Amino acid sequence: MIDNIEIIGLIAGILTTSAFVPQVYKTWKSKSAESLSLTMYLVFFVGIVLWLIYGISINSLAMIFANAVTGFLALLLIFFKLRFK
Amino acid sequence: MIDNIEIIGLIAGILTTSAFVPQVYKTWKSKSAESLSLTMYLVFFVGIVLWLIYGISINSLAMIFANAVTGFLALLLIFFKLRFK
Repeated sequence: MIDNIEIIGLIAGILTTSAFVPQVYKTWKSKSAESLSLTMYLVFFVGIVLWLIYGISINSLAMIFANAVTGFLALLLIFFKLRFK
Repeated sequence: MIDNIEIIGLIAGILTTSAFVPQVYKTWKSKSAESLSLTMYLVFFVGIVLWLIYGISINSLAMIFANAVTGFLALLLIFFKLRFK
């Protein structure tokens, strides 16, 4: 069931997820990841996987959606950082 | 009450929150925010505020803690981006 709280969560998820798109685009376009911290994205990725497990545990559609997509984008940035270094 | 699921959430929160610390440190030390996307951090910050509201609504200690601290760190990076540009 989708109630008002879940709608706030879905909007939150769209925002925090889409926040990574400009970074992915900027990094891809400039082929530069100089100021990106690899440590940040590695720790972040592991945290996102745990949030995904948490979201599944509490049956939060918003958290499952957001963390699945954000995890994928974080992996992309890790790939760019390693490739463009 | 803190159960096992909440502990997973707290670890997730510590990881996704502390993921921003190296970025804050690196940006502060290099006094350079060239590759950081301002758009990313602005959209991200609004999303984090909504996640905080979501966490309060569903009484999730892990989400309240994580999003309060992450929101503060995202604000710091926005400040650096504007100051060091």
